[in-house]
Amino acid sequence: MKKENPTPTMKDVAREAGVALGTVSKVVNGLPVGDSYKVRVEEAIRKLNYQVNTYAQGMKAGRTYTVALLIPNTQDPFFASLAHHINIALSRQKYRMLLCSTDFDSELEQEYVNMAQLNKVDGIIGLTYNPHLIVEEGTPFVAIDRPIGPRFPCVASDNFAGGQLAAEKLADLGCKNVAFLRTGSSLNSETNKRRSGFENGCLFRGLSCEMKILNDGDPYELFEEFLTDHIQNGKLSFDGIFCVTDRLAYLIIKSLKKLGLKVPRDVQVIGFDGIRYFGNEDYICSTIVQPVPEIAEMCVDLLIRENAPSKPPLVCLPVSYAPGGTTLDPAQHPHQED
Amino acid sequence: MKKENPTPTMKDVAREAGVALGTVSKVVNGLPVGDSYKVRVEEAIRKLNYQVNTYAQGMKAGRTYTVALLIPNTQDPFFASLAHHINIALSRQKYRMLLCSTDFDSELEQEYVNMAQLNKVDGIIGLTYNPHLIVEEGTPFVAIDRPIGPRFPCVASDNFAGGQLAAEKLADLGCKNVAFLRTGSSLNSETNKRRSGFENGCLFRGLSCEMKILNDGDPYELFEEFLTDHIQNGKLSFDGIFCVTDRLAYLIIKSLKKLGLKVPRDVQVIGFDGIRYFGNEDYICSTIVQPVPEIAEMCVDLLIRENAPSKPPLVCLPVSYAPGGTTLDPAQHPHQED
Repeated sequence: MKKENPTPTMKDVAREAGVALGTVSKVVNGLPVGDSYKVRVEEAIRKLNYQVNTYAQGMKAGRTYTVALLIPNTQDPFFASLAHHINIALSRQKYRMLLCSTDFDSELEQEYVNMAQLNKVDGIIGLTYNPHLIVEEGTPFVAIDRPIGPRFPCVASDNFAGGQLAAEKLADLGCKNVAFLRTGSSLNSETNKRRSGFENGCLFRGLSCEMKILNDGDPYELFEEFLTDHIQNGKLSFDGIFCVTDRLAYLIIKSLKKLGLKVPRDVQVIGFDGIRYFGNEDYICSTIVQPVPEIAEMCVDLLIRENAPSKPPLVCLPVSYAPGGTTLDPAQHPHQED
Repeated sequence: MKKENPTPTMKDVAREAGVALGTVSKVVNGLPVGDSYKVRVEEAIRKLNYQVNTYAQGMKAGRTYTVALLIPNTQDPFFASLAHHINIALSRQKYRMLLCSTDFDSELEQEYVNMAQLNKVDGIIGLTYNPHLIVEEGTPFVAIDRPIGPRFPCVASDNFAGGQLAAEKLADLGCKNVAFLRTGSSLNSETNKRRSGFENGCLFRGLSCEMKILNDGDPYELFEEFLTDHIQNGKLSFDGIFCVTDRLAYLIIKSLKKLGLKVPRDVQVIGFDGIRYFGNEDYICSTIVQPVPEIAEMCVDLLIRENAPSKPPLVCLPVSYAPGGTTLDPAQHPHQED
């Protein structure tokens, strides 16, 4: 039994419209053709309910219209938000996104990079902690936070300005003696600038500042020891603490409570990232907010923009401060402890 | 070029019956349509000898080793966790995952389903709120939480048991008068069973129970009115509240504090989902925990397992209870209010 082909091809469209196959291809790919041709092709597409096959379309132009996102996981709310906004930004440009939750698996990261080198995906956006990642020259790769080489663009928040802003806010809120706490990967990363920016801000505003930096593998308890060592007669010698992430701020606030200290009355705490309850409710703590939608847009733009005269090696996007109950900002909703 | 089509498709049935594809889909999946449409579709099915497959057939040859995940977003921590675990489970089976953050965009959802039907992806795992989604018979599709038709497997937590467990826990913790609060999509969904399970548990344990259900579009303030109406002389008439999600529990706890009530001393609150701070720290509230890794594994297994004699239409996976500071569980770490 002969049956009609349920999915019409570009050839069917050409036959229906009475034009050459190349004309259909041009219309479908948005290239200029005469108006009368365009109308005929579009009518035929509607009539046949022709579905533009972006994979086949990719073949012609040597594209898959697919981009891979390498990210440690999507459980961490900062990563989850990045994945969401990059997905949306790619979708707007008609690109699909392969999600690769690497779980810090270097082999998996390398596999996806190799896919890009074999043109199985059009490019990669990667937040990777793999110092041994081999990315061949010319691979379309945009890094987030950790630059992978001078010839690949890296997009990050303005971490230096963010550190500085945290110091200025603490000064504005009346702090005199502050501390900076950090943990995390010791790899070269843009996020390291949070510390320098904070030091700079403290210097500028005359704050006395102590640092406590944990290296990879150091136990969290060292922070509790550090805090305990700075308590005399039940009073902490710091009135402000800047933590390198909101997650660390969250843990530190728990430790401070255990030590009998009230946040923000006894000590004000600012984190970094801008994490909200359930992704879109209140901030979990007072925080320097990363511009996640803008980071996502910039990554996608740098990756897929064509004919760019040159791609900048590093793009830093502006951060902002948001009170979240762990600082004594005026006219704010109830503090955490209420 | 005409091609021979060995087996008639749902599209052929639609053409024969002179109805929209969606109408055929509804008839085939046992969803309500007008009687005259139903008769026409059934006649066309008989005439063309269209075979309704009893279960989603196994993956076809020429596979892409790519599965698409349809999910509203990855900002919501429950969705973020699902995306992560499904990504990991697929990766373990050497499958790649296209992430489609649908943002409740029905067109985008349909586009991905069409990709699966055109074999551009091997299958779909979908948590979708689109009641008009057209999924052709035989498309490899596994649904999460909201069944899309009796012939596609659906994976969910045991929501009924979860509701029941919440009632039992509140009873164990000394509650006598409890409330159930819910909001969210009014679509048919497995999550609706949380309410029935809770009612059942209350009945079984002799708890008096009031319900407050908001429909799509109702303002949150109705909950605050409901709570206010149940306060007499500064005392709430409920000693326990079960909220349909942790997010709602979080909002209700904020409202209770605003009303001058202490959680858990004055009223104990249990949510549903098992959301943790930063994805892996403490639970945000006392909660019925969904087994996300197990849901992910089950979805992947149902989708890619071959030669399965039959695929179950609904798989409900066991939930558990976790104290999170908003209940008076014995021997627990400090409560939220401390």
